[in-house]
Amino acid sequence: MAIEYPDNLLDRINSPSDLKHLTTDERVNLAAQLRQFIIDSASHNPGHLGANLGVVELTIALHYVFDTPHDQIIWDVGHQAYAHKILTGRRDVFHTNRKYGGLSGFPSPAESKYDAFGVGHSSTSVSAALGIATAAKLKGDDCRVIAVIGDGSLTGGMAFEALNHAGASGANMLVVLNDNNMAIDPNVGALKEYLTDITTSYTYNKLKKEVWNIMHKHTRSRRVIQQIERGVKSMLMRQGNLFEALGFRYFGPIDGHDTKYLTRVLQDMKRIEGPKLLHVLTVKGKGYKYAENDQTRWHAPGLFNKDTGELIRLSPANKQPPLYQEVFGQTLMQLAEMNPRIVGITPAMSTGCSMGHLMRRFPDRFFDVGIAEQHAVTFAAGLAKNGMIPFCNIYSSFLQRGYDQVIHDVALQRLHVVLCIDRAGLVGEDGATHHGAYDMAYLRAVPGIIIAAPMDEKELRRLMYTAQTADCGLFAIRYPKGYSTSTDTEEPFCTLPVGKGRIIREGDDIGIVGIGATGQQVTEACILLEDADIHAAHYDMRFLKPLDEQLLHNICRKHRCLITVEDGTIIGGLGSAVMEFVCDHRYPVQVKRLGIPDSFVMHGSFSELQRECGYNAEGIVVTAKNMLQRHALSHAG
Amino acid sequence: MAIEYPDNLLDRINSPSDLKHLTTDERVNLAAQLRQFIIDSASHNPGHLGANLGVVELTIALHYVFDTPHDQIIWDVGHQAYAHKILTGRRDVFHTNRKYGGLSGFPSPAESKYDAFGVGHSSTSVSAALGIATAAKLKGDDCRVIAVIGDGSLTGGMAFEALNHAGASGANMLVVLNDNNMAIDPNVGALKEYLTDITTSYTYNKLKKEVWNIMHKHTRSRRVIQQIERGVKSMLMRQGNLFEALGFRYFGPIDGHDTKYLTRVLQDMKRIEGPKLLHVLTVKGKGYKYAENDQTRWHAPGLFNKDTGELIRLSPANKQPPLYQEVFGQTLMQLAEMNPRIVGITPAMSTGCSMGHLMRRFPDRFFDVGIAEQHAVTFAAGLAKNGMIPFCNIYSSFLQRGYDQVIHDVALQRLHVVLCIDRAGLVGEDGATHHGAYDMAYLRAVPGIIIAAPMDEKELRRLMYTAQTADCGLFAIRYPKGYSTSTDTEEPFCTLPVGKGRIIREGDDIGIVGIGATGQQVTEACILLEDADIHAAHYDMRFLKPLDEQLLHNICRKHRCLITVEDGTIIGGLGSAVMEFVCDHRYPVQVKRLGIPDSFVMHGSFSELQRECGYNAEGIVVTAKNMLQRHALSHAG
Repeated sequence: MAIEYPDNLLDRINSPSDLKHLTTDERVNLAAQLRQFIIDSASHNPGHLGANLGVVELTIALHYVFDTPHDQIIWDVGHQAYAHKILTGRRDVFHTNRKYGGLSGFPSPAESKYDAFGVGHSSTSVSAALGIATAAKLKGDDCRVIAVIGDGSLTGGMAFEALNHAGASGANMLVVLNDNNMAIDPNVGALKEYLTDITTSYTYNKLKKEVWNIMHKHTRSRRVIQQIERGVKSMLMRQGNLFEALGFRYFGPIDGHDTKYLTRVLQDMKRIEGPKLLHVLTVKGKGYKYAENDQTRWHAPGLFNKDTGELIRLSPANKQPPLYQEVFGQTLMQLAEMNPRIVGITPAMSTGCSMGHLMRRFPDRFFDVGIAEQHAVTFAAGLAKNGMIPFCNIYSSFLQRGYDQVIHDVALQRLHVVLCIDRAGLVGEDGATHHGAYDMAYLRAVPGIIIAAPMDEKELRRLMYTAQTADCGLFAIRYPKGYSTSTDTEEPFCTLPVGKGRIIREGDDIGIVGIGATGQQVTEACILLEDADIHAAHYDMRFLKPLDEQLLHNICRKHRCLITVEDGTIIGGLGSAVMEFVCDHRYPVQVKRLGIPDSFVMHGSFSELQRECGYNAEGIVVTAKNMLQRHALSHAG
Repeated sequence: MAIEYPDNLLDRINSPSDLKHLTTDERVNLAAQLRQFIIDSASHNPGHLGANLGVVELTIALHYVFDTPHDQIIWDVGHQAYAHKILTGRRDVFHTNRKYGGLSGFPSPAESKYDAFGVGHSSTSVSAALGIATAAKLKGDDCRVIAVIGDGSLTGGMAFEALNHAGASGANMLVVLNDNNMAIDPNVGALKEYLTDITTSYTYNKLKKEVWNIMHKHTRSRRVIQQIERGVKSMLMRQGNLFEALGFRYFGPIDGHDTKYLTRVLQDMKRIEGPKLLHVLTVKGKGYKYAENDQTRWHAPGLFNKDTGELIRLSPANKQPPLYQEVFGQTLMQLAEMNPRIVGITPAMSTGCSMGHLMRRFPDRFFDVGIAEQHAVTFAAGLAKNGMIPFCNIYSSFLQRGYDQVIHDVALQRLHVVLCIDRAGLVGEDGATHHGAYDMAYLRAVPGIIIAAPMDEKELRRLMYTAQTADCGLFAIRYPKGYSTSTDTEEPFCTLPVGKGRIIREGDDIGIVGIGATGQQVTEACILLEDADIHAAHYDMRFLKPLDEQLLHNICRKHRCLITVEDGTIIGGLGSAVMEFVCDHRYPVQVKRLGIPDSFVMHGSFSELQRECGYNAEGIVVTAKNMLQRHALSHAG
């Protein structure tokens, strides 16, 4: 018997308090509306989809059972918090999600009191929740703290560090393990296999059978057998469980889409003190068949036709230059065909970085290590120590997690690891947590490292080729997210001289020194300057370290005004390196640094953010004109 | 019946091959001699003691059973590898251990082919071993790979990341869990409790009793009961074990001091393919009663009288200024008495950083989170988010592990965390892996951070006081290992203006800009320069960020020659900041940066290493004279 609901149930939820009086059936209905709202929204404003569809019922249940914002929910990673945002007063502005000046794609305390902790990177939620719960206890505050963490995020070491601490501390907190068997790509590792085991009760059933067999030989009493079974089961739950071993009370697994049961269990757990974990099974993409069927593609699908599930590309695929990521993936596979020592490593980003080509071609030489940047780097070091040439691909902002390992395990031992730093520079809509702003600054301090950045996709291929032939230690190549510049990528490989830059364009009035893909903006700026009769020279440093001192001497002898342009923080990167050079050699050269300023940059399109930072072509032009004007004035005066 | 052995058994072991023909009794005897050798050596050449005494039998057994260096042993952390070094050809040079130009205190492939992987920081061994084993498999090399990791190191998240990967990979490797229930301080966390549980068979015995009780009611057959017990035991071992859950075959726990049994088990395990873990119980300080009785103190005891166990202090304790660490610990406790919002966090270094004072005074406001720097930082962020003011103390080189969390969880959310960076700058005998060389460079790039460094112990107290009163986000205070400068530390607290430096000494000829404890060398240099009739001004920046621009304007207007002095890398730190300032403002000032050069500095005494780096007082003097001479020449010419 179908029940009639008002169509506008979702429209009436302006805060979690509006959920409290809904019946179970109404909440089931709300979930359907919320799911549709998210699909509608994501279809014309790109964002994360699959993970959000997976937690619709869980989100409603959590806000129904707990008293937010006094009770605090921390969403690990946070790209699954759309339902949370929509239910906590942000429905009407949700169309601004991930847009410049609009809502963040991740929870952010600056945006809402319901966002208990800022997230973006994986595996932080248990640590943050434990901190919040511990502070609450010290203050005598009775708030409840809930960390919602995916099975993928659980592979990150810091989640384990936090469980180890929390389990022994006795802190009153709930960890909801949102187990969908996926990171962005299918989850990997022993833990995933373990979760599958307990989900399917494989071990329990096997044991039950064994006990049955033994018992069967000795007694016909069903009662005895059942008692033994119960004892064993209770022991398995209490002591044989991984999370119980870490001091958490373990509950589950339960169906994360069963609103009624999920709500009841959460209500029960609310009354249990101490650290506890609820294992919830969800389906990524739940309720939208296209997303359920191809979960990796629909993690963040871009624009799509919600009715047909057709993904929309803004320009015809055959006309568009390939993504840098695609060039990386193809090139790595080609190099691996030529050089049997090459292996590839990714911490759970095989699709994102396009290492799938290598995976399919040489499955034995491809390693998805899970969300585990620290391990990825030292695993690479071990491979290099024993003769391999690992191409370890890590997104710039995530490499912050592997910094110690870069110094301690690779550079210090001068191991030949090729560190491929994807998503370097601004990343656009993912925003502040994901911009690759710091890698040039923090890596430049590392002794013996080679740091290169290609100006375009051809240079990326040359640098990757060079990196595997070089007799060197750590060779880092940083390149941006997004489309490269030309469809004609397939040049023969050639070696570039390490530590040598190049002159892209001659010009006498001012020197512009770029690195990496910012060379594209510099090229554009030079043309605009030419229109204003200003003849700018364009230098592509190619290598941040070793710095091409010969080229810099030539530059400093020729120009009185220099602009450095980099897609990284202006503190400690290329601009600083050039200033150190100028100071060390006492050149009377004026230098202006352009790059990411010393503040956190939020989200928006590439062009919006580059304009904000002042290193788009127009920004470079303005800077050049100002410098030349001031220079002329000071020399006139 | 006592058996006679040659006294010089150890003298005959020049490589592990010399072990192969020894009988069990001879190996037992060798262990005793080796232990005595280590005690002798450490008593007059300070180093790590307790951990080394704990693995004497294990080291002999590993080298006896495995075929090193073809088989590869990776010692996690590596401060327990003295026996390994002595048995692998370094006995006669072991007296140079940790000395300038001598043996490293940690395994180092540059030193010996028996040192399979460079170590120093915790929890890297499983990742490295997996890399080496994976490469071996790809190359068709049949070498065996062994990671020896302590129960303390196992709390580090990257060890878990590696176990998760290794367990699923099926790689042929052995992890030896060296369980002595200690990090430097007693080990903490749920994992430690779990290991105690399986060691004491607590759960197993409890279950056995339960099963007995149930069975007893229904059958008198001992045979039936035993069969059930066996089934349950085997299940517990196979499936209920944490390591089995992670895909490792688990063996143990066994006595790590029983040479005969340990050897037999290792021989058995050699024949088992795939990932496997042997749980070995050892006693830190084993065989030396003083060390066994006070394991934390005897972790690295300094000089001692080996007969009496008396620790030797080089100068009378009441005359010596306190350690910076002691000043930190006392001050933190005093501040915590005044401000109830203050809590203390240490990743397993409570004794090393002297947080014991807080622990004893306010046990509820002290948190040893285990070897877990990532978690420590985000746990601090969570505490700060809920109103506490956490003083999170992490050694500089270990903070490299928490860099992402510093940016992503603290700075981006502008949470008021006081990051106390201990062991900043050169650390002396621990060497390359432990120098705190990079923190100023990598932290300066972080937006909104405050970075301070005290010139002496009084300034440390003032900065700690200021940090908790300031209305700010992340406040970092870096200070060195070792003795402060005065015994008179107990001044009343006062607030320092954030971002303001100070003038220590006026002088017209040259400006010397120091930060932190290098101010001591600058002070000394100024006196030496005065003797040469050179009047140097001494500025103490106090804050690397925000930089005191007003002071720098004054400095740049006054001086034509500037020297910057910092105990950190000269790439990206204070010197770079000053050069950026000089360039930005176009001052015609010559700047020379002194600090840790762009290369890895090895081990030795503070004075030896500072001399090598050129920023001891004499180095500053030479630099000043050279600059002034060149300046005079260029202005004459």
